[in-house]
Amino acid sequence: MEGVDYLADERRKAEFDVDSMKIVWAGSKHVFDVVDRMSKLVAADPVFRKDERTMLSRKDLFTSSLKKSAHAFKRMNELNLTYEEATELRFFVDEPTYTDLHWGMFVPAIKGQGTDEQQEKWLPLAQTMQIIGCYAQTELGHGSNVQGLETTATFDSKTDEFVLHSPTLTSSKWWPGGLGKVSTHAVVYARLLTEGQDHGVHGFIVQLRSLEDHLPLPGITVGDVGTKFGNGAYNTMDNGVLRFNHVRIPRNQMLMRVLQVSKEGKCTYSDVPRQLIYGTMVYVRQKIVKDASNALSRAVTIATRYSCVRRQFGSQNGGPETQVIDYKTQQNRLFPLLASAYAFRFVAEWLQWLYGDVTDRLKVNDFSTLQEAHACTAGLKSLTTSATADAIEECRKLCGGHGYLCSSGLPELFAVYIPACTYEGDNVVLLLQVARHLVKTVSQLGSGIHPVGTTAYLGRAKHLMQCRCEVKKAEDWLNPSAILEAFEARAFRMAVFSAQSLSNFPNPEEGFAELSADLADVAVAHCQLIVVSKFIDKLKQEIHGKGVKRQLELLYNIYALSLLHKHQGEFLATRSITAEQASLATAQLRNLYSQVRPNAVALVDSFNYTDHYLGSVLGRYDGNVYPKLYEAAWKDPLNDSVVPDGYVEYIRPLLQDNLHLSRL
Amino acid sequence: MEGVDYLADERRKAEFDVDSMKIVWAGSKHVFDVVDRMSKLVAADPVFRKDERTMLSRKDLFTSSLKKSAHAFKRMNELNLTYEEATELRFFVDEPTYTDLHWGMFVPAIKGQGTDEQQEKWLPLAQTMQIIGCYAQTELGHGSNVQGLETTATFDSKTDEFVLHSPTLTSSKWWPGGLGKVSTHAVVYARLLTEGQDHGVHGFIVQLRSLEDHLPLPGITVGDVGTKFGNGAYNTMDNGVLRFNHVRIPRNQMLMRVLQVSKEGKCTYSDVPRQLIYGTMVYVRQKIVKDASNALSRAVTIATRYSCVRRQFGSQNGGPETQVIDYKTQQNRLFPLLASAYAFRFVAEWLQWLYGDVTDRLKVNDFSTLQEAHACTAGLKSLTTSATADAIEECRKLCGGHGYLCSSGLPELFAVYIPACTYEGDNVVLLLQVARHLVKTVSQLGSGIHPVGTTAYLGRAKHLMQCRCEVKKAEDWLNPSAILEAFEARAFRMAVFSAQSLSNFPNPEEGFAELSADLADVAVAHCQLIVVSKFIDKLKQEIHGKGVKRQLELLYNIYALSLLHKHQGEFLATRSITAEQASLATAQLRNLYSQVRPNAVALVDSFNYTDHYLGSVLGRYDGNVYPKLYEAAWKDPLNDSVVPDGYVEYIRPLLQDNLHLSRL
Repeated sequence: MEGVDYLADERRKAEFDVDSMKIVWAGSKHVFDVVDRMSKLVAADPVFRKDERTMLSRKDLFTSSLKKSAHAFKRMNELNLTYEEATELRFFVDEPTYTDLHWGMFVPAIKGQGTDEQQEKWLPLAQTMQIIGCYAQTELGHGSNVQGLETTATFDSKTDEFVLHSPTLTSSKWWPGGLGKVSTHAVVYARLLTEGQDHGVHGFIVQLRSLEDHLPLPGITVGDVGTKFGNGAYNTMDNGVLRFNHVRIPRNQMLMRVLQVSKEGKCTYSDVPRQLIYGTMVYVRQKIVKDASNALSRAVTIATRYSCVRRQFGSQNGGPETQVIDYKTQQNRLFPLLASAYAFRFVAEWLQWLYGDVTDRLKVNDFSTLQEAHACTAGLKSLTTSATADAIEECRKLCGGHGYLCSSGLPELFAVYIPACTYEGDNVVLLLQVARHLVKTVSQLGSGIHPVGTTAYLGRAKHLMQCRCEVKKAEDWLNPSAILEAFEARAFRMAVFSAQSLSNFPNPEEGFAELSADLADVAVAHCQLIVVSKFIDKLKQEIHGKGVKRQLELLYNIYALSLLHKHQGEFLATRSITAEQASLATAQLRNLYSQVRPNAVALVDSFNYTDHYLGSVLGRYDGNVYPKLYEAAWKDPLNDSVVPDGYVEYIRPLLQDNLHLSRL
Repeated sequence: MEGVDYLADERRKAEFDVDSMKIVWAGSKHVFDVVDRMSKLVAADPVFRKDERTMLSRKDLFTSSLKKSAHAFKRMNELNLTYEEATELRFFVDEPTYTDLHWGMFVPAIKGQGTDEQQEKWLPLAQTMQIIGCYAQTELGHGSNVQGLETTATFDSKTDEFVLHSPTLTSSKWWPGGLGKVSTHAVVYARLLTEGQDHGVHGFIVQLRSLEDHLPLPGITVGDVGTKFGNGAYNTMDNGVLRFNHVRIPRNQMLMRVLQVSKEGKCTYSDVPRQLIYGTMVYVRQKIVKDASNALSRAVTIATRYSCVRRQFGSQNGGPETQVIDYKTQQNRLFPLLASAYAFRFVAEWLQWLYGDVTDRLKVNDFSTLQEAHACTAGLKSLTTSATADAIEECRKLCGGHGYLCSSGLPELFAVYIPACTYEGDNVVLLLQVARHLVKTVSQLGSGIHPVGTTAYLGRAKHLMQCRCEVKKAEDWLNPSAILEAFEARAFRMAVFSAQSLSNFPNPEEGFAELSADLADVAVAHCQLIVVSKFIDKLKQEIHGKGVKRQLELLYNIYALSLLHKHQGEFLATRSITAEQASLATAQLRNLYSQVRPNAVALVDSFNYTDHYLGSVLGRYDGNVYPKLYEAAWKDPLNDSVVPDGYVEYIRPLLQDNLHLSRL
């Protein structure tokens, strides 16, 4: 029945104030209000409907996405939205599109790398969308290794121009979003060649398409790279391919904030610190960590609600079957993911603070925390996006067979999310950067250089090498400092053992290569420790609302102990805990699952997602799953006709070729 | 350039005879010949092209799939193929379709559950495809728990008919492949109600659609359940929804081999052993394990070849960058999957033998091995399908960004494969069945009942409780019996500890529920031991061909030691090995990776896959990846026009609304 809340019983079980938890999740009352308003605005607007998205052909999908983008821009103007509001509105439209790159990469690249003069010229055009820009860095043969890019920008002093050229097939720009069909301009990264010298990779503003008729300009070949993983998903985006055949641009379209080229072709570095680039990376990655908490919490909402609706086995005396959320196997897979959503949220909140701190320091040329901040954001980007990608697929499996239907929302969420593991730094490459920083930090211990920030614990070398876990009974694992010390001991000892192993190699680089798989594990251990410790810090803050803090404590314990169980091997191998203590942790986990169980639905309600944003029949707020699944099925294009296309050509002949034999 | 083998250098490195390995993989020269012939036949036939599959709309995709099915059936007849050949041909057409259910479920259900008379009537119709059938078991609200099905078949003795009915929305049949649009008939599972009594769930042959015009018969509502995960993938299949409104069928359309209903409505069981059903389950699941090795080896082929083509970083003096397969992080992720493909292949081979053995025993009413065989196949189904699903996604990640393109073949392979984790028994439910069997076996130790088959090791209780791993240096881990004993000790001790924990619960069922997450781990440990031990058995067989056995030994060691590393926590917690021994195993693994590296391409060539079957630009045999990726991009529908649909309505207005401000 419409209007009935089939999950009302679940909601009545909650032992905390959901409205207060919503504020904690949002970060503040102000943010909650903006997000709540924007999400409802999008949900109420029929142009932003997305329930048919996974059934559209690529072309129809793309056109419908262009329509939504234009409508979103129109609404932002009509409603005179603030930048914050507009950003949230685009977030809840929930479709990757060219504007993501325009606002998220093109405009910031000009701001960050353009001179004042360049900013004055280009930013007003971009900000009123008189031009639409993208960010053309990666090439067909070159992804992670930016220094290996092949596109050339050769300075011609006779005409005061750069000549952009794609010298090989592998130098074709490949992947940039918004490039394939929409962008009129791009910031193109190319090797700067002047006076016969290669000056490395720099950014150039290049017009790609005519502003009159949208046709590519002479010398430019541009198109879409083709269909990507999943129905709907990232196929709303025109990730593009681009080739240059000796395309000329004026000299003043090289972004020259850091390096200037004179009209004679001479290169001069400005006094702008080159470390500024790291500030941008910290910004982008803290946003990715927040996005991870969004995607993960969305998947967990769907799996949690449907696990309450769905029943399997356990019927006694003809009564209803057991809700699947009451099975310990389900709880053991689901609740650590619920806890991770909160954990990632709080570490994202802290990263936002870190970005501010780094920015303030850069303003006064204080680079002392930059390396550590850079390593830590790289590691957390890797950790949270990998965990989230896996978690979305796990949530799909937790929904049984029905999770495989596009109407569950989970297939598209998975397909649209997984690029986060690759873009802005491949997750394995990033872990090795973290490991390099850790090994370096460990090797400097005792040399008077004190580790800072998230590596500060490495300075307590003597204690962490000797400490023994004091846990004697399951309840002892509820002590946050017992957990923290175990995580510190594990991370520290793994880092030290790896540094020792490395020192056995005559050539440190060869050693690093040989041991890289182990070093990636060291980085993961370190990053998990960061998430654990930032969760503890959060619990130390003032937290309002009946029962809210208690729930967060439960989630903290679940997050930490489930990791401890999963990585038991490392905790045992480093003797950070004993086998008996590991077993007590597992027993405590089961106990925690029982405590969080009655609060599960309320804990996902606290994310405050609209049914529009969730986009899932299984995750509906009201739990009215089966009638809506049934309705959704009939909307499939294949059900347009009772007898399918192709029946006459391909089915009837099979059936009737021998019909004379039939006795039916 | 066309015709050039860009992987020739890699192939020259191989230290074994690839043609001999192809025979080992296929299982015999005969099977190799059939498979080779059929795969090439499909690859050469333009009707079976599939390179545009991921770009088609659902309706076009479905119609093109109907065309292929009809063409395949035509070719089978024209070429007068044997059953074996026809099965391989359908396998290489590589599209889920209604014929899978017709041949794989409908026909076997009639064979297994129909009386002689029923078989005589229905099998000729089905075998000439004068009728097309599917297997309608699961319902909207009922998957794993077959006994909870709601559809009713009420016997009406007045008319000598059964009345099929769907009493609730959740009783709608949901998921059966081939049901939605194609099948004329179905074996429908429904509760048998006669003389006011519920006799549980039985199968009924029901005609669904007219053989004249394909319209649903009166009282029948039938359609497709909607779009599923991924582009192409399982969307070629018309998984269906079906409702009955008092549909009448003659009494003789209940499958009555086991239970007969007389015209008075009396039920009588025949003397056919009901255990026969387990024989069928062993058959279906051994096939699923073989399919896992197929899917996994296909993904590994793509990732391995592309890892040799792709280069990133490490360029020295302007030379080429390093092949990514030379990175230890890549090897550490890829080579265990390569080893798993072989491991799963050999355990599937053994399961095929086991099925024969079980069948022979059933013929003489010997049920002594049935329970163990059933548990073992259930567990191996779960283990291999979960591992394969994860591995396909890991292979996609190992291909970097380009793995996200549909032209890589990996997104579709993942989407089409993952249902294997759910169908024919949810993987977690199956593990708990195994655990139940293990706990029971352990509890009977000492009572005179000797464990058989794959549980025989549990009989060596005293030894396995006391033994200590003798490994003292990395090379000691190359000893197969050292590995085997460590796996046995781990599995045995985990089983025993769990049985002990269970005995602390006053109510064993409550204990089982409470500890179910741990029990699932026990089952995994047991199943991994089976795979390891069957791989050892394979190595003991005569193996022909230069260097072939040596490669298999390497793969065996990689398979076992990478598992040991991954599950280190369990090996340490059960004291099956020490932390030092775990560390030696990791060192040995790195060494093994270096040894297998030069053979990697040849080891995937040994699967003998055509480029058609692989369906991957990245996995091409000749390694000519980048030009072909570039070509493939232009075939996307979005590139049909240079200026995209929607430009005039949704892009130009944005750009030009303020064009008077432009200074361009």
